[in-house]
Amino acid sequence: MPADSLEVDLDRILRRLDDLWAIGSTDRGGVTRLAYSEAENEAFEYLRSELSDAYSVREDAIGNLFASRRPDADRSVHLGSHLDSVYNGGRLDGTLGVVAALEAIEAVNASDRSPAYPPTLAVFRGEESARFGQHTIGSRGALGMLTVEAFSATDENDVPLWLAMQRAGFRPRNLSEPTIDLDRVTAFLELHIEQGRVLDEASDRVGVVTSIRAPVRYRATVRGADDHSGATPMALRQDALAAAGEMIARIETIATEAAADGDLVATVGDVTAVEGAINKVCGEVTFPIDVRSNELAYRERIEDEIVSALESIAARRGLDLDLERIDRSEPVDLDETVIETLDAAAGSVGTASRRLPSGGGHDAMNFRLAGVPTGMLFVPSVDGISHNPREETPETAIRDATATLAEALTAID
Amino acid sequence: MPADSLEVDLDRILRRLDDLWAIGSTDRGGVTRLAYSEAENEAFEYLRSELSDAYSVREDAIGNLFASRRPDADRSVHLGSHLDSVYNGGRLDGTLGVVAALEAIEAVNASDRSPAYPPTLAVFRGEESARFGQHTIGSRGALGMLTVEAFSATDENDVPLWLAMQRAGFRPRNLSEPTIDLDRVTAFLELHIEQGRVLDEASDRVGVVTSIRAPVRYRATVRGADDHSGATPMALRQDALAAAGEMIARIETIATEAAADGDLVATVGDVTAVEGAINKVCGEVTFPIDVRSNELAYRERIEDEIVSALESIAARRGLDLDLERIDRSEPVDLDETVIETLDAAAGSVGTASRRLPSGGGHDAMNFRLAGVPTGMLFVPSVDGISHNPREETPETAIRDATATLAEALTAID
Repeated sequence: MPADSLEVDLDRILRRLDDLWAIGSTDRGGVTRLAYSEAENEAFEYLRSELSDAYSVREDAIGNLFASRRPDADRSVHLGSHLDSVYNGGRLDGTLGVVAALEAIEAVNASDRSPAYPPTLAVFRGEESARFGQHTIGSRGALGMLTVEAFSATDENDVPLWLAMQRAGFRPRNLSEPTIDLDRVTAFLELHIEQGRVLDEASDRVGVVTSIRAPVRYRATVRGADDHSGATPMALRQDALAAAGEMIARIETIATEAAADGDLVATVGDVTAVEGAINKVCGEVTFPIDVRSNELAYRERIEDEIVSALESIAARRGLDLDLERIDRSEPVDLDETVIETLDAAAGSVGTASRRLPSGGGHDAMNFRLAGVPTGMLFVPSVDGISHNPREETPETAIRDATATLAEALTAID
Repeated sequence: MPADSLEVDLDRILRRLDDLWAIGSTDRGGVTRLAYSEAENEAFEYLRSELSDAYSVREDAIGNLFASRRPDADRSVHLGSHLDSVYNGGRLDGTLGVVAALEAIEAVNASDRSPAYPPTLAVFRGEESARFGQHTIGSRGALGMLTVEAFSATDENDVPLWLAMQRAGFRPRNLSEPTIDLDRVTAFLELHIEQGRVLDEASDRVGVVTSIRAPVRYRATVRGADDHSGATPMALRQDALAAAGEMIARIETIATEAAADGDLVATVGDVTAVEGAINKVCGEVTFPIDVRSNELAYRERIEDEIVSALESIAARRGLDLDLERIDRSEPVDLDETVIETLDAAAGSVGTASRRLPSGGGHDAMNFRLAGVPTGMLFVPSVDGISHNPREETPETAIRDATATLAEALTAID
């Protein structure tokens, strides 16, 4: 590491991760800190208690927290992530991004470097869709992007998001008005676990995110005829499950071939045999399809290929196929200048890094959509595991990625 | 129809079917008459009320009913079926076999024919496994074949079979002792709906059953790795659901090819994606496999072929595959002499008939296993539908099959 490198205190990072790991812990070995729950409130209080008096702290109308040592600065680089979790989630998703951002700011502050744009720690509410079926609630709200639909979404007890916000002590008002002054945000940076296997398989410590894949999603329903498994000859069957099996395997084949020519993943992650039984030919099967790419045109080409393949399988078998498109989001390219800054920062830290797309959405995505120059760093997820108590990242990667984030803070000009 | 043919009263059959259709009727349009339920008791009482005083009626220790006009005869042809149903079952499964048997006996009695062996109506309890997970309880009990395991099986309220029998008013004792004198049973005949599509597709009215297919059954569990659907490149996946899809389609292909060379059906009628979700690569999938044939050696050959195919799919993909064999029953050939008698009887009635194997098990199967010359007649299931309120058989087929049964009664010597 270069002699003038910034000092990252790994022990302090790990202590803060441990402290947050105890908030909302479950008897299944993980944490449950849902959006606008008591546990999320407690995590925000903890974080506030870790900030020295040198920080000026602001809480916005929906509970996001912004902290800066230089609140008077005209422009500031914002960095951070979220503190909520899925049901029985892990130690790192979101939380690491907040703790690492704070450590990067403190490392810069403790050095003799003087960044062009003083940093602001940004901590968001409710990034996970676990409670309300709505993702990135806090960052969308901060950017004035929260729709009325999202605001009215309910949890499993039929509590709408707006009421949950009020009960947690906040007073949301004009949804379309950002809670932060975008003109004063020079850039947005987020560090996050990869939630995939790319860095872990490649033994890289830091990933620089180039783009965020977005999904087009379908719900497929295949209809044939229910029959007795023993009494119905093979030739007389209209077997919806055998057809679905062929379709699911075909989607994998198409996606695997497409991944050789461009950025693409396609997945069937669930299946339901309607009234299935061991002694029946199954007459109806449904399954979801999730196709993602960071190139919209390429995704649309493969989407068409999958749809035609499924339709021809159904037609050949004489079955009904219903394909309902249930989601269609647009991929986001991150800012090339910020990507180069992060690449250079990783280089100056001397860590093994690579560029890669993000498979899932993150708070950073919304800043990019709002026109803010945005970058993301990934750290490896051991075995690709996330949304799970077994979520893990090597400590060396946490240290190097945090140092990279600190270097980037001083490099943005 | 020949001039001396036996007179079957179709209206009386339909009235009795209507009367029984009202017993245990559900608000979902079907009937629920489970083994040893109030509804099953009521159906037995109804049937008893339809027997004239000329019948001598005997109820055995587990509630089966035997009725004959000639209880003094040395030997008797037994014929009948069951009165219980699955949950929300149809009008004909079992019930038609009882009503048709009674009608055949009455047709013979009203004629000037004198059968060599006077008929006995046999009505069995609990043929369906709906309540206790145990099939053909009544006929197994009548033949001394009820195991202690079956006898202790419980329903969804943890009531064991033996207690349910007691609560229904019966006093089962020595399980291994038949409740009927097998030396006095010349033959056993059962008429039943096909529960498949063969007769309906061929427009035949009567089927003569040659054999009863028996299943070998597995529960397959495929294990890979749970991953994020957006973040995991195709090449790094261990997708248990894509593997299961390929396996399910392959089983269908193997069975379809095997059906060209011998009697064989193989089915995957259900599938469970463990913790499946639209945004996951699914790490664990289970599905049952049901392989049936009336030729044991052939079934074993195809079973081996399926097992190897699945193992090689799992090996190529680097996934774990667990194949647990959960059932292994032996196919039963019905009695050739009785088959020929039934064939000739159908011919004398002048109806379109064909020989076919039975896909499912029936009370008749147990008589064959007990060494009694046994035969079965099938009537078409419209669209192959059974275990469903939409169960239907053309009235002409009901009439012709009942007449065939009556003809056979007078022909057995």
